[in-house]
Amino acid sequence: MITQSHALSRGRRWGVLFDVDGTLVDSSYIHTLAWWQAFRQHQHDVPMAAIHRCVGMGGARLVDTLLPAGRNREADAEILTSHAAVFAQSWPSLRPFDGAKELLAQCHAGGLAIALASSARRQDLAANRRALGADSFIHAATSADDAKASKPAPDILVAALEAVGVLTADSVYVGDAVWDMQAAAALGIPAIGVTCGGTSAAELRDAGAAEVYEGPRDILDNLQASAIGRLLAPADA
Amino acid sequence: MITQSHALSRGRRWGVLFDVDGTLVDSSYIHTLAWWQAFRQHQHDVPMAAIHRCVGMGGARLVDTLLPAGRNREADAEILTSHAAVFAQSWPSLRPFDGAKELLAQCHAGGLAIALASSARRQDLAANRRALGADSFIHAATSADDAKASKPAPDILVAALEAVGVLTADSVYVGDAVWDMQAAAALGIPAIGVTCGGTSAAELRDAGAAEVYEGPRDILDNLQASAIGRLLAPADA
Repeated sequence: MITQSHALSRGRRWGVLFDVDGTLVDSSYIHTLAWWQAFRQHQHDVPMAAIHRCVGMGGARLVDTLLPAGRNREADAEILTSHAAVFAQSWPSLRPFDGAKELLAQCHAGGLAIALASSARRQDLAANRRALGADSFIHAATSADDAKASKPAPDILVAALEAVGVLTADSVYVGDAVWDMQAAAALGIPAIGVTCGGTSAAELRDAGAAEVYEGPRDILDNLQASAIGRLLAPADA
Repeated sequence: MITQSHALSRGRRWGVLFDVDGTLVDSSYIHTLAWWQAFRQHQHDVPMAAIHRCVGMGGARLVDTLLPAGRNREADAEILTSHAAVFAQSWPSLRPFDGAKELLAQCHAGGLAIALASSARRQDLAANRRALGADSFIHAATSADDAKASKPAPDILVAALEAVGVLTADSVYVGDAVWDMQAAAALGIPAIGVTCGGTSAAELRDAGAAEVYEGPRDILDNLQASAIGRLLAPADA
C-alpha cells in the first residue's frame, strides 16, 4: 500500500527515493540469516554470501535466483512464508543506522519529497518504519504489494516517484544493493550507494552508483556536495 | 592446542594453510549476528557490516577495533563470553562450503601438508571441524590459544607453519578476510582469497590477495592453475 501523508504542491518538485533494508535500517544480515534458515528448512543449502548479495530483490525473485531451475517449485511459497516467520522474530531488534532519521529530516526540511522505495513485505516495512521513527518526514512508501516486478526491475521506483509526483529527472535514489543501482540506472536516476548494507564500494560502482558513502551519517556529513545537495539547491529553482 | 595427526617427513615439505570461518565453513554471517547481539546486550550499537569486515580477527582485537577507545573496558570480557554463548547455539547448524572437504582431500592426496590457521576459540574450531568432517586430511590446527597476537598479526600462521614443518617460501594461505590477506603478506606467503565469506574480490585484492576464487569448489575447479597447483608440482621437486 502506498501511503501519502503530506499534500504535495502542484508545481515542480524534487525528491529522494530511499531503499530501506540495509540503507536506513541495519537488517541485511538479519534477512540473510532468515533466508538461509528458510532454505535449510526446505533442504536447500545456499551459501550466505550468495544470499546476502540478493537481499533487496523481492522475495520471489530472490528464491528463483538462488535455487536450481530444475527444483520442485511447489515449496517456493513455503520458503517465502518460512523467511517471513523467521525474520518477524527480529522485528523488535531492528535498529536504524546512525544518522538515518536526521538524513530524512534534513531532506524534508530542504523541501524535498521523500519516498521509501522498498520491495519488502508490507509487514516488514511497517517494522522498519517503527524502528526508524521518522514517519513525519516520509511522504510516501512502497512495499512488495505496489509493483508486479520487484528490483532490479524499476517498477517499485516508478510507483514511488508517482506517489510523490516527482519526475525521474528531478530525483535521486539511495540504496545499498547492486539491485538498487541497477533499478535506478534503468530509469536514468542518479544512484547513491551506501556500504552499510555490507556490499562494497567497488561492487556498487560497478553496478552504476554515481557516488558511494559509508551510510546515512556519511551522506549527512557530505550533504551539500552530494547528488542530494544538488537537488536541495537546483540551478533552475 | 596444536594437534598433529600425521608424522611428516624430515625432507622439504610443501603445505597449505587454511583459514576456517568463512573460508571452509559458512560461519561469517553467523559470527556477525552473534557479535551484534553480544554488543547490543552491553548497550553498544555496532553496524553489522562493520562487524562482518572484522570477523576473522581474534575476538579481543575485534572488540577493541569496533568499540570506542574511551569505553569502560571492564565489560569487554563479558562481551567475549556473550558472543561465545550466542555463537555456540549455532554449532549444530554449521555447514561446510561446497567442495571444502574435497579440496582438503585433494591437497592431501597431492602430498601437501595441511594446517588450519584460525584465530577462533578452541571450542568453536572443534565445532567447525565436526561440520567439515575432514580430520583425516588435516595435519595440524591452531586456535586462539596458539598465539598471543591474533590476525592481522601473522603469529597464528607462524604457529601453523611450525606445526607442519613447512617454510613460508613453500606455503600458500587461503582465507576470506582482509585480515587473512594482511597476515599472509606480513610473512611473504602468497594468499588466495575466497569471496564465500562475503568480502568482495576487490577488497581482497586491495588487501594483497594474489588470486581470488568464489570458494573451495572454484579453487578445486582451477586447482592446477592456482598457487596451490604450483605447490603440487614444484619445479625443483
